[in-house]
Order: sequence, then structure tokens, then C-alpha cells
Amino acid sequence: MVNDNHSLQDNEETIHRYWDNNLDPVLTIESGDVVNFKCPEPTWGAVTPDTVAEDLYNISTPGHALLGPVEIADAEPGDVLQIDLLSVNHGDWGFTIVNPGKMNDGLLPERFEEPEIYIWDLSEGVGEFVNGIEVPLDPFPGVVGLAPSTDGRHSTSPPRNVGGNLDVKHLTEGSTVYLPVEVTGGLFSIGDGHAAQGDGEVCITAIETALSVTVGFELRSDMDIDQPQFETNSPFTPTGRDESMYCTTGISDDLMDAAKQAVSAMIDHLCGEYSLSSHEAYILCSVAVDLKVNELVNAPNWVVSAYLPKSILP
Amino acid sequence: MVNDNHSLQDNEETIHRYWDNNLDPVLTIESGDVVNFKCPEPTWGAVTPDTVAEDLYNISTPGHALLGPVEIADAEPGDVLQIDLLSVNHGDWGFTIVNPGKMNDGLLPERFEEPEIYIWDLSEGVGEFVNGIEVPLDPFPGVVGLAPSTDGRHSTSPPRNVGGNLDVKHLTEGSTVYLPVEVTGGLFSIGDGHAAQGDGEVCITAIETALSVTVGFELRSDMDIDQPQFETNSPFTPTGRDESMYCTTGISDDLMDAAKQAVSAMIDHLCGEYSLSSHEAYILCSVAVDLKVNELVNAPNWVVSAYLPKSILP
Repeated sequence: MVNDNHSLQDNEETIHRYWDNNLDPVLTIESGDVVNFKCPEPTWGAVTPDTVAEDLYNISTPGHALLGPVEIADAEPGDVLQIDLLSVNHGDWGFTIVNPGKMNDGLLPERFEEPEIYIWDLSEGVGEFVNGIEVPLDPFPGVVGLAPSTDGRHSTSPPRNVGGNLDVKHLTEGSTVYLPVEVTGGLFSIGDGHAAQGDGEVCITAIETALSVTVGFELRSDMDIDQPQFETNSPFTPTGRDESMYCTTGISDDLMDAAKQAVSAMIDHLCGEYSLSSHEAYILCSVAVDLKVNELVNAPNWVVSAYLPKSILP
Repeated sequence: MVNDNHSLQDNEETIHRYWDNNLDPVLTIESGDVVNFKCPEPTWGAVTPDTVAEDLYNISTPGHALLGPVEIADAEPGDVLQIDLLSVNHGDWGFTIVNPGKMNDGLLPERFEEPEIYIWDLSEGVGEFVNGIEVPLDPFPGVVGLAPSTDGRHSTSPPRNVGGNLDVKHLTEGSTVYLPVEVTGGLFSIGDGHAAQGDGEVCITAIETALSVTVGFELRSDMDIDQPQFETNSPFTPTGRDESMYCTTGISDDLMDAAKQAVSAMIDHLCGEYSLSSHEAYILCSVAVDLKVNELVNAPNWVVSAYLPKSILP
């Protein structure tokens, strides 16, 4: 019998803002159990619908507000934890921030030195942006992870072999994630709700929002993986099928530099063709433009492209 | 009136195997003209349907066999050439090669030191692989480019700001490419036919094949770009719509290393689950598995994933 009566809500006991394998579990479950997580938006109240760009100079956010850790009985190092994302629902508002110096800098710190914020009304199920642009919503948790075996406190920002801040936009409802277990009990945590994100999350934030996620857990002692793997049939384009894209390339002997050039060219394209400010274009890239590696073998130059779905444009 | 009577076929006059802005044009056209290119397979006869792996030790291929250059009247440095891919049709056979040391090494030279070849029968419009695996065909030219302004002979292997060996798998029929013009007349060449390729082209070759491509040309003096841009509604998944994918991640502080880890994990997955040899798995990744940059801002670790469409599996 599946026990689907577990649930976790945010409070001082259930929220943590760093990874640490010494944290006491807030819940212990068995393989086969189902848990509903009511994740708060990732700053846990530091950002509100009334926050404006100037406020960001004075807002210092610790790590993502994560729910957990959840101990999985019998999980041992070397096991794999299967995480089925049974349902994922976003909150009724969200925000996207550019905030160099206060959090990670994003992909283009040399071009964006000032903070900016955009507050999204998500109550209609779509992200209304400026100039008639509408961003479809495909909510997913940015952070899905287990405690690392290395002792001590660790930042929630970088992903690790045990998962964490993966920011894989395809971890939407119906998807499954596999994480390697490094410590007894696994110690699972989740958070960083995103209502929509482009591959890359280039400005450092997606549409950050509260998230209700129902998760099924299975211990998979038959699997052997070193880093996360996942299965998804989730949106690869906003309409879920082939549709028209406008794409900019970056060509360079360094993949990061190629990505920067592609995104920078897309920002120029959005500013020139759709009258966006550069901050608005950067934000739109972060929530709706996808990065693909076209080739990385034609030495010495690689190609990374940024894909803008035209269907989001007016 | 559009002049659609131009056509180019491969012969000693029309084929070149390096970039050089000093090459004499084999055809001069006007903006608005249409040209049909009958591109040979990229080795121009060095590889045949009878080639086996051992032969590869003795096959030394110069650059891709490219058709051109085509001079576009009135094209001047600073202009942009719009290239409409009006129709694209593949040949009736193709090959995929792993050939470290003889051509570029591919993404995983440390894992694949021996040459390998797979000959594809494309006459039924699908790529039959081993063990019941079928790769859908979405043909496109791997090389679409203009002559670079830097004098002298240049390898056809790396792409440059003027395009060239872009290997963008989405440059399929109906797509449009924009290239910055660097020399008077532009000097357009095309080749490197691919019947199918994954984002990344990880083993160094796609399904290499002959290609008949009909191209419309427009000079766009209203555009201003530094590197190629393109528009496409071409296949983003084999079925053209959301479908189930199995995905492996690579997490590293270097994007190239992350890509290597993701592809290496996918090869392990294909060998373990579908009884492929590691060479077969590497080849399948190169022709059918897509690389996406999930995030590149959560310092110090980035995430690149390899996406395998389950629909190609038996």
C-alpha cells in the first residue's frame, strides 16, 4: 500500500538553506511512499510582489529555502533514489531577478551591472511580460537533491553529483529523476520553484515561485549511476510540438564563451526587433530561450545556439 | 522574376576542399536567384558502401567536398546573405565514422581509440541501426558558409563567423540561415550532407550522405549580425512533438567536461539497457542524442544533459 498521507509545509523546522548530511530528518518514509511538498518561493519572503529594483541592493538572500531533509528508510550509499514528480503546481505570482554582486552573477555580468526585477502575475496560468509577450508556464522544482557525503555545510547554489540546484527545465509533472545516494537515509530536499525557465537560466533566476509538488519515492538498488539521470516527456517547445524559432549562434573555441555570444546576440535581436530594454531581453532569455550545443567536435570552434520560440511574441 | 535555373553538380571545377577568398567563383547569381546544389557525400568517394573499419587506417580525407563558391552580385562586406533552404533530399546510403587520429577526434578520444564505421541504407527513408533501433531522417547540410576575409587557405573543419561547418541539425528543409558577408561577392559554398545528427555530433560524423539542396538567396542590407543566425521550425524531437526521453547529466565546472560526462553516461546506459557495443552506442549518440545546456550560472558547477528519444528504440 502506498502511503500518500505525508506532507511537508514550510516552517522554521522544515526549511533549511544549506546542504549538510548532519541535519536531522524532518520526516522518515519508506520506499513506495508519496509526499506532498508545499515549497515556498525560494527567498522565503525576502522578495515580495512589492519589491522593486532599488530594494535589491539591500536584500541579501541566504541559500534557497529547501523543504526537508526527508529520510528514506533503508537507503544506503550506492543505492539510487527514483523520484517521480506526480504533480507540480505553481503559485499565483513569481519574480525574476538580475542581481549581480548579491547572488551569482548570471551569464553576462559585464553587460548587466545594475539590479532589475520583474514581478509576474501567474494567476491566469500564463506569464504576461511586456509588449504583449506571453511566456507559457511549465512549472518544475529547480532543486531536487540528496545530502552530499562530504561533511559540513554546503551552499545550495551549485548542483553536485547527488543533484541539488540542477535547474533542469524538463523536470516537470510526469517526469522522473534518479539520484545516487551518498549517505544513509539519502536525505532528500526540494525547493526553488520555477514556473518557467529557458535552458541555461542565463540571468540567474527563472520565474521564481511557490510550488506544490507531489513526489513518489522508490529505492532502486538495481541501478548504478554516478550523476543524476532523468526521464521526461515534458515540453521541448512552448506548444509541445515543432514550431518556429529564431536562433542566434555563438562560435568560439570555448563553450561558455560561445553561449555568452549567442545570448548576447539574442538580447540584441530582442531589443532591436521587439523594443525591449536590454534588462527585459535578458530576463526573457532566462525564462523562455533555450541553449543547445550544436557541435563540440569541429576543433577548434564549437557552436552553441539560443532558440527563441516565436509563439511567445505578439 | 526569380531565376531558378541555376544548378551545380560535383566535378573537378565545382568542388573545393578548403576555404579561400581567392577561389574563382563557379557561378555568379543575383539576389533573388535560386540554385540547386547536388552535393556529393563529404569524402567524395573515399568512403563507399563497402568500406570497413580496417580500411579507415588508410583513408586520409582532405576537407569536406564543398560545392562552390557562388558569387552573389553586389554583395559587399557588412551585408547579410539570407539563405532559404527550399528543399533538402538525402542520398540512398550514408555512413558514420569514428576515426581518431585521421580526422578530428570526436568528444571522447580517451574512450575510443579504434576506428569504426557503420553503413546506413537510407533507401526506405529511415536509418535502420542495430538491435531494432530506427533513426528518423531529417536531412540538412552540415556546411553552409561564405569565404572568410582572412586571406589564404583555411580548413573546412571549424565553423567561423561567416558560417561553414556549423553542423546545426535544425537547418532542415524550410529553414533560413543568415550569414555575415566578409568579402565582395560573398562566395557561398555548401556541402557535408547529413541525413540525421544529434545536437553535438559527438563521434565526429553524422549520417554522412549525398544531398540535393535547393537554395534561395537574398541580400539583406537591412540586417547587421556578427555571427550566423537562423530561423527554423524543424524537428526538435523525432516525432516533432513532446515525447519520452531518457536523459543523462554531466555536472562539472567546465561545460566541455560536463558534456563528456553526460555522453559517457549515455553510452553506458545504451550498452547496459540495449546491448549495444560501446562503438555502436557512441555512433547512436552522434546521430540521434541531443545535448542541452540546462544551466550555466550556478557557480561553480554547470549542467549539460544528453537526451535520448525513446521512440527510436525497439
